[in-house]
Amino acid sequence: MNRRRFGATVAGGLLSSRLASHPLGRAARLLAAPPRVDGARLNRHLVELSRFGANPQGGVTRLAYSDADRQAREYVLGLMRDAKLTPSIDAAGNIIAARAGRDPARKPILFGSHIDSVPEGGNYDGDVGSMAAIEVAQTLGEQAITTRHPLHITIWQNEEGGLYGSRAVSGQLTADELQNVSRSGKTVGDGITFLGGDPQRLAQARRVKGDIAGYLELHIEQGGTLERDHVDIGIVEGIVGIKQWEVTVTGFANHAGTTPMDQRHDALLAAARFVEAVNRVVMSVPGRQVGTVGRIQAFPGAPNVIPGQVVCTLELRDLDASKVDSLYNRIAAEATQIGTENGTAFAFRMLHENVPAPSDPRVRSLIADAARELGLTTKVMPSGAGHDAQALATLGPMGMIFVPSIGGISHSPKEFSQPNDIVNGANVLLATLLRLDDAAWS
Amino acid sequence: MNRRRFGATVAGGLLSSRLASHPLGRAARLLAAPPRVDGARLNRHLVELSRFGANPQGGVTRLAYSDADRQAREYVLGLMRDAKLTPSIDAAGNIIAARAGRDPARKPILFGSHIDSVPEGGNYDGDVGSMAAIEVAQTLGEQAITTRHPLHITIWQNEEGGLYGSRAVSGQLTADELQNVSRSGKTVGDGITFLGGDPQRLAQARRVKGDIAGYLELHIEQGGTLERDHVDIGIVEGIVGIKQWEVTVTGFANHAGTTPMDQRHDALLAAARFVEAVNRVVMSVPGRQVGTVGRIQAFPGAPNVIPGQVVCTLELRDLDASKVDSLYNRIAAEATQIGTENGTAFAFRMLHENVPAPSDPRVRSLIADAARELGLTTKVMPSGAGHDAQALATLGPMGMIFVPSIGGISHSPKEFSQPNDIVNGANVLLATLLRLDDAAWS
Repeated sequence: MNRRRFGATVAGGLLSSRLASHPLGRAARLLAAPPRVDGARLNRHLVELSRFGANPQGGVTRLAYSDADRQAREYVLGLMRDAKLTPSIDAAGNIIAARAGRDPARKPILFGSHIDSVPEGGNYDGDVGSMAAIEVAQTLGEQAITTRHPLHITIWQNEEGGLYGSRAVSGQLTADELQNVSRSGKTVGDGITFLGGDPQRLAQARRVKGDIAGYLELHIEQGGTLERDHVDIGIVEGIVGIKQWEVTVTGFANHAGTTPMDQRHDALLAAARFVEAVNRVVMSVPGRQVGTVGRIQAFPGAPNVIPGQVVCTLELRDLDASKVDSLYNRIAAEATQIGTENGTAFAFRMLHENVPAPSDPRVRSLIADAARELGLTTKVMPSGAGHDAQALATLGPMGMIFVPSIGGISHSPKEFSQPNDIVNGANVLLATLLRLDDAAWS
Repeated sequence: MNRRRFGATVAGGLLSSRLASHPLGRAARLLAAPPRVDGARLNRHLVELSRFGANPQGGVTRLAYSDADRQAREYVLGLMRDAKLTPSIDAAGNIIAARAGRDPARKPILFGSHIDSVPEGGNYDGDVGSMAAIEVAQTLGEQAITTRHPLHITIWQNEEGGLYGSRAVSGQLTADELQNVSRSGKTVGDGITFLGGDPQRLAQARRVKGDIAGYLELHIEQGGTLERDHVDIGIVEGIVGIKQWEVTVTGFANHAGTTPMDQRHDALLAAARFVEAVNRVVMSVPGRQVGTVGRIQAFPGAPNVIPGQVVCTLELRDLDASKVDSLYNRIAAEATQIGTENGTAFAFRMLHENVPAPSDPRVRSLIADAARELGLTTKVMPSGAGHDAQALATLGPMGMIFVPSIGGISHSPKEFSQPNDIVNGANVLLATLLRLDDAAWS
């Protein structure tokens, strides 16, 4: 069925409308091979980008709003200009390079990713989709292909900190979040200014539902499913919902030598039982949900003082928002019980929430068709990671393309994807973009 | 038996030798009341000292080698001069104020404590013994009492970081420890220089076994035993041995959204099980041993990254060194098993060791006699906390006097001892000092 639809698209949509403007005319385009990206150039750009924020032990620390982030963005702006694009920075600090379409009345198709990293991150998360988006635009230019829709290549700012750039565009960024302190040490507001945006004029960057013809993003899987199953391309069915809390455990600081074991209110002992409980509760039900305590600190934090307070984080993810809530309720109940048992108190403060974001079924079909045209195998799968695509999904049809992550390793210097897989992903992005551009409904 | 010995001491030793030099002569001294400290002045000095490094929420953060530490030491030097003492700073950075004795050939009796604090500490740990030592010396001056032995009032530097000042004097400080980074951010060597010492000339501060006639230290109990049992004065039978380790748990950092629960090597989950195991092992045998994990940090430390490494501390204390070793061996074995079960590895690095230090039984008797003379109740007890006295115990007869800590709270802004109990402790220190000065064996 998909194969028949693919044939129909090639004959009826994909080529017919585009060839009208091709300098060699319709006959020549029908004979020419479909456009392909320059894979060597794409992988070279990935290597070059990895210089910015490089760590001695490998990988990068390219925190949003850091000097390394800004230097990498300068590099990206240069690549865009080399690709004959005219980049600009929107009020939210995102880099957006527009490419004109044949029909100025059409809404734009957006595609891109991000280049900021977590602390001690890798060279593929965000970078692959960002470099591939520019490569796709450069290929279109070199092949003198003008799409029906205007194209916007988008490099979103501060994805890792909480999708700040894309959420500013989708209108999900709340005013108080501008005061959040990012890992760079700057507030989000100051960071936007640092990147050349203007936090006082975010309305200029804002788009509303229906403003875009679609959004595509290529990304590494960051899990090990595609590699394990020997599949080339993941078609994302949706992005899991995420909830993050800051958890404060309050006990009583006291001298570690003079306070008997049975008279302690040890906040770290309670926090340890909490970490264990999170793991146990999340694993107690079937499914793909995950739960993580990623940050922890004990106060005052001396070897000879019983911790009086511990601050840690809790993160829960699943495609089903109600499952996240149910797990949270069980974990919070266990925390209360742990606190009662050792004389400590737990308090939860919501840090961050992303609702689950399904991709558009029509775009998923286009990705499947594009991959098949390229002779690549596919698998429909959820994204356990959050992505800018989830903010864009609130504005128009969204699709995401995954390529394999070796060993399923991400947010680590050991993050790696094969150059050939990256080229495959970029070609699927290109072919999907052309199909989306030609789709009757777009 | 004690009462008879007390009577013998008064008649034969305490008064007879001192009165030889008293301006009013032996008869007047026999009629005069025993000397008592000025309790109001002592408690006023404690309040004044608490200004240095005061925290808004109460208590002090007066880290060794910080500006607050140095300012507090200036205050102490002023008090000493007001007390007609001539303080100096030894090569190790300790403040030492000498007071001449009648017999210049006698070895000195030392007494004092420390004024540095843990982060977010209280106003009594160290401060009480320091202010009381100066008060005792000032009282002797005002009463025109000259002891047989020279007296040295000693304010040891960086007790909380690991008895650095007193261990330099006892020769237990190893050369490499000068490079240890203290909580102030300075190395110990730089800190000694900062306080007016000279780390190149530590030999000048060094004393060897037999160089001192004795060492006395008044301190708050830091535990809740005296208050609970309604006892005025604790007579320390010995200071527990302490071992501290830095524990590094190595797992594998990975994306918290894309890595299934059963494929994680979560260093923090392993560390949580370790914290629980420390508590369980330490509580599994009878006795007064304690075990604490006081510091913990997860790396890279983001809510959305599975921790790849955790660094925490382990501290074990007991009067019996072999028990500490036995507990450690069991804990290390459990850590290995925890690591095997979730694909992480534990490494232990010794940070610090204090061997158990018994007090001198003869000095304990003098303290008991002095307290009885003052109508105070006593209890012989171990010290769960480490003290400078344990370094001094290697040089000569050592005795420690405890006063009650309300609620057993210490290393906390809520640390508190009743002004009246502090005055009692200072008077026991004074009376014990005079008995030690007169003792036939000293």
